[in-house]
Amino acid sequence: MSSPAQEPTPTAAPTTRVAPLPLRDVTIDDAFWSPRIETVRKKTLPFQHQQLLSTGRMDALRLQWRPGDDPVPHIFWDSDIAKWIEAASYSLTTQPDPKLEAQVDEAIELLAAAQQPDGYLNSYFSVVAPDQRFTDLRDAHELYCAGHLIEAAVAHVEATGKRTLLDVVCHYTDLIEKRFGREPGQLRGYDGHEEIELALVKLYRVTGEDRYLRLGQYFVDERGQRPFFFDEETERRGTPGFFGDHFRDRDENPEKYREYMQSHLPVREQTEAVGHSVRAMYLYCAMADLAVETGDESLLAACRTLWRHLTTRRMYVTGGIGSTAEIEGFTEDYDLPNESAYAETCAAIGLVLWASRMTHIDRNGAYVDVLERALYNGVLSGVALDGERFFYDNPLASRGGVERHEWFDVACCPPNIARLLTSLGRYLYSAGPEELVVHLYAAGTARFAPQGVPVVIEQRGGYPWDGEVRFTVRTDTPVEFALSLRMPGWSAASTLTVANDAVDLAVATVNGYASVRRQWADGDEVVLQLELAGRREYAHPAVAADAGAVALTYGPFVYCVEEADNGPALHDLALPRAAALDVAPSPAGLAGVTALTAAGRRHTSQEADPLYSTGPWNSTDAQLVAAPYYAWANRGAGEMRVWVREEAG
Amino acid sequence: MSSPAQEPTPTAAPTTRVAPLPLRDVTIDDAFWSPRIETVRKKTLPFQHQQLLSTGRMDALRLQWRPGDDPVPHIFWDSDIAKWIEAASYSLTTQPDPKLEAQVDEAIELLAAAQQPDGYLNSYFSVVAPDQRFTDLRDAHELYCAGHLIEAAVAHVEATGKRTLLDVVCHYTDLIEKRFGREPGQLRGYDGHEEIELALVKLYRVTGEDRYLRLGQYFVDERGQRPFFFDEETERRGTPGFFGDHFRDRDENPEKYREYMQSHLPVREQTEAVGHSVRAMYLYCAMADLAVETGDESLLAACRTLWRHLTTRRMYVTGGIGSTAEIEGFTEDYDLPNESAYAETCAAIGLVLWASRMTHIDRNGAYVDVLERALYNGVLSGVALDGERFFYDNPLASRGGVERHEWFDVACCPPNIARLLTSLGRYLYSAGPEELVVHLYAAGTARFAPQGVPVVIEQRGGYPWDGEVRFTVRTDTPVEFALSLRMPGWSAASTLTVANDAVDLAVATVNGYASVRRQWADGDEVVLQLELAGRREYAHPAVAADAGAVALTYGPFVYCVEEADNGPALHDLALPRAAALDVAPSPAGLAGVTALTAAGRRHTSQEADPLYSTGPWNSTDAQLVAAPYYAWANRGAGEMRVWVREEAG
Repeated sequence: MSSPAQEPTPTAAPTTRVAPLPLRDVTIDDAFWSPRIETVRKKTLPFQHQQLLSTGRMDALRLQWRPGDDPVPHIFWDSDIAKWIEAASYSLTTQPDPKLEAQVDEAIELLAAAQQPDGYLNSYFSVVAPDQRFTDLRDAHELYCAGHLIEAAVAHVEATGKRTLLDVVCHYTDLIEKRFGREPGQLRGYDGHEEIELALVKLYRVTGEDRYLRLGQYFVDERGQRPFFFDEETERRGTPGFFGDHFRDRDENPEKYREYMQSHLPVREQTEAVGHSVRAMYLYCAMADLAVETGDESLLAACRTLWRHLTTRRMYVTGGIGSTAEIEGFTEDYDLPNESAYAETCAAIGLVLWASRMTHIDRNGAYVDVLERALYNGVLSGVALDGERFFYDNPLASRGGVERHEWFDVACCPPNIARLLTSLGRYLYSAGPEELVVHLYAAGTARFAPQGVPVVIEQRGGYPWDGEVRFTVRTDTPVEFALSLRMPGWSAASTLTVANDAVDLAVATVNGYASVRRQWADGDEVVLQLELAGRREYAHPAVAADAGAVALTYGPFVYCVEEADNGPALHDLALPRAAALDVAPSPAGLAGVTALTAAGRRHTSQEADPLYSTGPWNSTDAQLVAAPYYAWANRGAGEMRVWVREEAG
Repeated sequence: MSSPAQEPTPTAAPTTRVAPLPLRDVTIDDAFWSPRIETVRKKTLPFQHQQLLSTGRMDALRLQWRPGDDPVPHIFWDSDIAKWIEAASYSLTTQPDPKLEAQVDEAIELLAAAQQPDGYLNSYFSVVAPDQRFTDLRDAHELYCAGHLIEAAVAHVEATGKRTLLDVVCHYTDLIEKRFGREPGQLRGYDGHEEIELALVKLYRVTGEDRYLRLGQYFVDERGQRPFFFDEETERRGTPGFFGDHFRDRDENPEKYREYMQSHLPVREQTEAVGHSVRAMYLYCAMADLAVETGDESLLAACRTLWRHLTTRRMYVTGGIGSTAEIEGFTEDYDLPNESAYAETCAAIGLVLWASRMTHIDRNGAYVDVLERALYNGVLSGVALDGERFFYDNPLASRGGVERHEWFDVACCPPNIARLLTSLGRYLYSAGPEELVVHLYAAGTARFAPQGVPVVIEQRGGYPWDGEVRFTVRTDTPVEFALSLRMPGWSAASTLTVANDAVDLAVATVNGYASVRRQWADGDEVVLQLELAGRREYAHPAVAADAGAVALTYGPFVYCVEEADNGPALHDLALPRAAALDVAPSPAGLAGVTALTAAGRRHTSQEADPLYSTGPWNSTDAQLVAAPYYAWANRGAGEMRVWVREEAG
């Protein structure tokens, strides 16, 4: 049976190239997702805006700061404003909101006013350290901030048609283009935190300006070339840099810190996912984007190699990535500790972004299996059910005491979740001239125009709690096109009917997408039935942390056992291998959520028992109740385990 | 079956009070121990002396240091000299060595010359910070160093009869006695690192001076009283103290750092082993010593409570203690992580010292079961088979890369092992007017004089690899006394014969000691036969780290699996519950060591296998080879595990 983490095999005969359906052409009216997106609109975005005001971030753009003033602007601040504008713009795309739009316009006015005559735009370097502009690319996140401004500008113009921010970032990018490159007098460098590279491809796509694509290509190509830019930069500057105090072992471990920012090798020679996991994902996204735009097979080959490495060696079963907080990133192959897992929410989001790009190149459901796994687990665990508290890191086990924080305690993950959820529509559908591809299932509509004929596809169903997904075609004119549906790797027995006729999925399915090409008429119905059942997953024997243990899954969800349902000492709970996994109604306190139950066993003891004994401990029957991982830590800060000990028999 | 960690029950009808046989009355001529003790004599002591010279420790006593000189004497340095003198003195007790004795005399001359006119003796505070004497009891280890000097002086006078160092430390102690106490003008404090308390009892015993006992009692009684001395001291001094930089969270966690040095509560109210584990052991030793000397039942009750807590909640199966490097000590009940175990060698030594004291109060073999467990495992793992490299911390699992260091890389453990091994004779036997007690088995002789008649007991056998221990009585005059032999808790079927007559152990054994009282004549033979067999031990179900796993033991030894015998990926190795444990000859590279083998199972995989799979992994038969834990990391720095996964069936 296919596993979600199987390596995709490149399609031998490539299918038609498709592109994500624009956000404005997708509506989501879904019992699972709509309330979450609504929470972002109603709570997160306003709260975030308030924070931008109250913490001084907006004010910093007025460039009134003088030495001695408190607070001191921070090098990241502009990116927080940018991510809020980006998320707000996505929201405005599908949900007009004059007040929000006015707030966005106001922020953009501040940005425009903060822009220097030469195009430079960064509140920190404009007032706090004006003489240090572009002197610490390794640490200071200058181009990273620029990248987020560019992403915000692209989202804004697509949402509103206004070029206000786009003009600002183009002016800034023109300066960056002059300043960076291989010509004499240019700085031959790149940023320590990737982000601008993928942003430049977006900027190219929205403006059509080749030079933005070439600049992105330059940053990606230059990365990791020798002599190492950051070494030269540090020597030239003669100071340890912004994070010199934080990374005290940097001088002794140059290779570690090159890997930290994926600058240890030219990107085409990189074969392993290393370093800071968010940085890695953003780089790989840019590599995939450039491969699509330029047809560069060597970049594509590197992407495939890195994908394979990441998903077969360094990815948690939840789609979380990054095993250690120390570098917010990767460690060694198969080193996937559960309790100390970092698995940053932003990194799982980065994996979603990259996986979506990859399936647009090598159309393959295995990419989306990973995307879906990350989305419903490693990403979604980052936000509480009430939408108001967040995890930065997402451990797969807890001995208790682990709780989400209110979003303003952390900087990057809540806005990143906000922009992913408000742009979720981009990840559901892709369209080509004669094809609609459905990657993810969520009720709503998709609008596209095969052969120029306006068509709306309605999607209905109770996914992911219900395996039936129904599509209805709405068109004034019958039209021929292919409807391609991703067949999730976790569904062991899917069926598909088109206008009540069964489709032979063995024939129709190529690389995880079942495709039906026909003349479609208004009202045609397609019914996809996925098999939802409790399943067991086992980690590769090289994963020491999961030896002898099993993870439970149900549809796209990874499950966990929590103290709220199972009592404490979860390590003493075992699942016999032969025990059936039953589907049960919501566990107490988790309305609307499907639970899995099984006849488990539990070691028993008395407190007075000796610490070591020559006889094995007694076990008793114990009902095991598992709930979806994303929903953990919503019922107190008790113990939790994704991997449950399995017993033979 | 009794377990080594069972709580001892106080003897209802106390047996005769006995005392450890003086070191000079014990010889060790044992295949297991003698080579180790010889290595200390021939290698460790000379090497250590060389280090004291080459690192500047001896020179520091000349008090010639001036600001700007390098190296700067360190606050611990005097204690390193003291521990070397102590170990050397034990060695001189049983093995005259004029060169070593001359080196000791020379060091003592330096110490005597460094003593200030008022008796004060500390090289650091005499030259580096003369104005800070007794201003940072919490961090500066001043009385700790004094305590080690006292222990050295006691060992030295007992070994050589020379009072040179004893006079020096008495002079110093007189100053300490004047300076510390509850009278007006005195400093009402105590040291952050316990040590002087137990040393003062030794000083009392060797000098007969009551005031030294009273001073020790004062330090123990004062500890943890409110208002907290260290709080007052810090406020008075107005600086963060010597370790202010190291313990950055100290101000925010006052309770944690009170527990760190067992100063959170008056000692009689302490019920849990907390904080720095070596400090805790030294305190508990002093409490036991004072209980013996003063008959203070409340101190004794506290010792019993703390013993029970430590050995039923916070002790590794190896006798190692201290779960975290962060505070070099204890964490929570049942929190016994294996790979990150601290289990400092010195702490296991401290447990040996305390256990020996406890069985002299509450005569009970269970104390010695713990002592023996710690000695043969948690202590002995601290030194390589060649005696030249040392572990400071002793993890119970390694993913590879863990190696011992040459002794000069670390400060406290090698000298502590040296003084334990050179004084090992003190822990084997105790004697009373009409009784000889044998706590531990090792070939050699014990000399004592029941009812004034000189008797030598010869002990022979291949313990611990062979379960037969033979005793022969040598006496010119038949004499009546009791011979009491500890019956190890791990021997499920012991037998005892006296002059070929079987002893009914069920009758003869009280609290783990089998006692035979009779008229003994020259040549009388006693044969103890212990059952040596591979055994399984299970951790209390509350120990999360060991859930589903089993530890193997054989006699006093805890075993482990190593990569050298079992290949890598030890987490994939499992021991079926029904598999027999066979005794096998030495594993390759570990001559003279008994191995345990069993028919195990091993998960198998290909590197190309997916990271997560819906089917359980294949297993194959795999011979499991376990070797004694103390001998690990002598054949490369491969993987190791004490706790092996157990499979049903």
